Amino acid sequence: MKNYQKLVAHYQSIHNFEHLRAICSWDQATNMPSGGAESRAQAMAELAVHLHKLHTAEELEELINNASLEQLTEHQHASLREITRVWQHATALPSSLVKAKSLAGARCEHQWRLQRQQNNWPQFKHNFDEVVSLSQEEAQIRADLLGSTPYDAMLDIYEPGMTSVQLDALFGDLASWLPDMIQQAKTSCVDQHNAHFAIEDQTRLANELMAFLGFDFNHGRLDTSVHPFCGGVSQDTRITTRYESTDFLNAMMGVIHETGHACYEQNLPKDMQALPVGKARSMAIHESQSLFYEMQIGRSDAFIQFLSGKAQALFKQQSEHNTPNMLKAQLQQVQPSLIRVDADEVTYPAHIILRYEIEKALINQEIQCGDIPELWDAKMTQLLGISTKDNYKDGCMQDIHWTDGSFGYFPSYTLGAMYAAQFKAAMMQSVNIEQHLSEGDFSPIYAWLKNNVWQHASRYTTEELLIKSTGQPLNTEFFKTHLRKRYCNG
Amino acid sequence: MKNYQKLVAHYQSIHNFEHLRAICSWDQATNMPSGGAESRAQAMAELAVHLHKLHTAEELEELINNASLEQLTEHQHASLREITRVWQHATALPSSLVKAKSLAGARCEHQWRLQRQQNNWPQFKHNFDEVVSLSQEEAQIRADLLGSTPYDAMLDIYEPGMTSVQLDALFGDLASWLPDMIQQAKTSCVDQHNAHFAIEDQTRLANELMAFLGFDFNHGRLDTSVHPFCGGVSQDTRITTRYESTDFLNAMMGVIHETGHACYEQNLPKDMQALPVGKARSMAIHESQSLFYEMQIGRSDAFIQFLSGKAQALFKQQSEHNTPNMLKAQLQQVQPSLIRVDADEVTYPAHIILRYEIEKALINQEIQCGDIPELWDAKMTQLLGISTKDNYKDGCMQDIHWTDGSFGYFPSYTLGAMYAAQFKAAMMQSVNIEQHLSEGDFSPIYAWLKNNVWQHASRYTTEELLIKSTGQPLNTEFFKTHLRKRYCNG
Repeated sequence: MKNYQKLVAHYQSIHNFEHLRAICSWDQATNMPSGGAESRAQAMAELAVHLHKLHTAEELEELINNASLEQLTEHQHASLREITRVWQHATALPSSLVKAKSLAGARCEHQWRLQRQQNNWPQFKHNFDEVVSLSQEEAQIRADLLGSTPYDAMLDIYEPGMTSVQLDALFGDLASWLPDMIQQAKTSCVDQHNAHFAIEDQTRLANELMAFLGFDFNHGRLDTSVHPFCGGVSQDTRITTRYESTDFLNAMMGVIHETGHACYEQNLPKDMQALPVGKARSMAIHESQSLFYEMQIGRSDAFIQFLSGKAQALFKQQSEHNTPNMLKAQLQQVQPSLIRVDADEVTYPAHIILRYEIEKALINQEIQCGDIPELWDAKMTQLLGISTKDNYKDGCMQDIHWTDGSFGYFPSYTLGAMYAAQFKAAMMQSVNIEQHLSEGDFSPIYAWLKNNVWQHASRYTTEELLIKSTGQPLNTEFFKTHLRKRYCNG
Repeated sequence: MKNYQKLVAHYQSIHNFEHLRAICSWDQATNMPSGGAESRAQAMAELAVHLHKLHTAEELEELINNASLEQLTEHQHASLREITRVWQHATALPSSLVKAKSLAGARCEHQWRLQRQQNNWPQFKHNFDEVVSLSQEEAQIRADLLGSTPYDAMLDIYEPGMTSVQLDALFGDLASWLPDMIQQAKTSCVDQHNAHFAIEDQTRLANELMAFLGFDFNHGRLDTSVHPFCGGVSQDTRITTRYESTDFLNAMMGVIHETGHACYEQNLPKDMQALPVGKARSMAIHESQSLFYEMQIGRSDAFIQFLSGKAQALFKQQSEHNTPNMLKAQLQQVQPSLIRVDADEVTYPAHIILRYEIEKALINQEIQCGDIPELWDAKMTQLLGISTKDNYKDGCMQDIHWTDGSFGYFPSYTLGAMYAAQFKAAMMQSVNIEQHLSEGDFSPIYAWLKNNVWQHASRYTTEELLIKSTGQPLNTEFFKTHLRKRYCNG
């Protein structure tokens, strides 16, 4: 095991530098005064270069090859598999391409902020063409290494093992079912006039909810930032939210979502936190935990009842805004809309399917950038009944993800929603979720997730994990059943 | 200049990693939940090892030697002098000694916390003997390199260029003068019963004082921690204080003190921040700036008047506690006492002189650890008229500094106080400090410090800096005059 042990030491070192990066990134978003940005950017760039050196150290290839010939336990085999995966991704691309893509992405993202406001597709397309072309080059290199299609090679970064053949089936099934479902589920808009919720009270409620949901404050904290996120490290997990005095639900749903991410991090096994096998399984599984918390729990009738009680006690002057019915009307509202990040649970998958179909064709070089606006409009009309003709800023220019070439990431959101529904269905075979929630007891739900998801980290592949915990591979029926039950009374 | 430029790039890299260390250390003291301590300690240790590698990189010796033969500007000469100094200190000791001292120091400090409570000198001495013996070894190695006495070699870490011959003269002068001065200056105790100052209001006052004193909030912030400190980096300077609801002066004096440190950091020249020559001159000069703010300004009659006005406006219910006379009675109180950190401006030097005399003899191997308690008692009796016989916890076991072998550091405090008095006297030749303060205008004072101290960073030696800004080397008369004037009506 001499070679394997050397790998362990090497990844422990990487883990330590990633710890520093996580804390300094968190600080950047929560505390750093703007005048500190320049020197921080330099320090972070230095750290990125150092981490890249560690991830691509020359000796790793030989150590990995030799370690695979050593007597390893089953656990160590899984660990070596994940080390190999991380190493392959880190060394896949020539530095020149990494640098070119990083520069093109930074330029595209920077100018996108203004171009989006100006609805200026032609100018955006100029930068975006370069990002796409470099991403196609990247995807081809990765595809040659993995023996897959270019797009599948990008997908592998965020959800290892997932293929577009599987996604075509999963998303195709959803796509054919969704438009009808949305028509049935559509509700009227809820508008809360004149509501006021003191930030101090919202913060107190946020902390209470986190404690209820099992967040370990001895190993983490809550702060505020412009965009909510979950950062830090698993022994010190930092989540953030943002508050508006006219709407407390927004901040609370952010907190509940990030608490799902945080509980996963906080419950990764202590003895292998430094190793790739000890990290969260994938972006999609991570998202499944935040969506389990936010969607499966946070927007359920039982939780809304519980939340209403807490809100009534805290926001005494606002009691008419906090009845279970009023909260439900907001938390279970369904309204087709243009913007993904504002979408509800039912229409959200439509936004993802649309992006998936377009980015897959783009990376596989079946379409060109110039084709995107028309495709976007056609798919939006088909799935949600809304046109985006000539409206680029609320259409194909709305997201930040493509500007830096993160192709393959979008599917994680809907995969996460589907995994979450499947976990919930499996959990219900042994846990009476609604009853526990109505009794104010989250611990059996927490224990199920800990035992079935969190503690396994990356020991199993996603499919193995799913079969182990739910008895079968990913199946869209659970998600569809969940949506039907919540939004169409079964 | 090829070699010099390579050195610049190397120290830029060190600076970047030190940036990460500074932010993560600050986070540790202000935000980190206790459960995060273990993984943070590992990450910080990894970073320390990496910084050590960079500081002792093999190629540096040759680069430094070659650079000294290159055509350099005056500025670059100073820069190379400081690089050489930093490199010499970093490479002076064999790693085995650094490690042994670090372990012995950690053990001694850890056990000291309980041993001090228990007044257990014999058990403390057991660990401390080892720390002293390793420090003596360290001092001897450094002395051989510098061609100085062992103690002077330790002094050089904190105040380059200062020698014990000079300190003997400076401190000897003070020591013979202080006991009489203290007798004359002694005041009665002030006790503030039943005062209450809301933490929220104290925080607001702290921010107002910082703004008044020139703190740049675009490049820094104020937080709370158990022990006040100034950390972060010069473009993002983080100061902290601690609040007690029964006493607002304590927090404010902490804030004013740390703001002095912070303004020095924030005004270091932007173009050489990454290089040793662009860092603060020395620990003693750093302390001179915090003491200038706290002692020369913060406890002056004119500032007390100004502070009283602010406090009266904020703490309306507490007006009898905030009159200028009441604030003055507290801020200019003189009382011989056992504990250094609680000492006032007049008795503080006595605590330092005592430690200086003992640590010098200890490091030069003229006395042994076992001699310390008796010496402590004798010197306390002589200087302050208080015995510490059998009272180790409030005597030689009170400080944390010796437990990790930081011998040579204590003199910085009183050197700082003396430098501050000398800067003030020089400033008064062109700036009417009292009048500006009474008019609520700090900017001429700030400008003088910026032009005469801050902007020079480490371009000059301490003595050169002092002569340039005040016209002469360090002279105890300025400090004595200051104390006489404030505490004995001239």
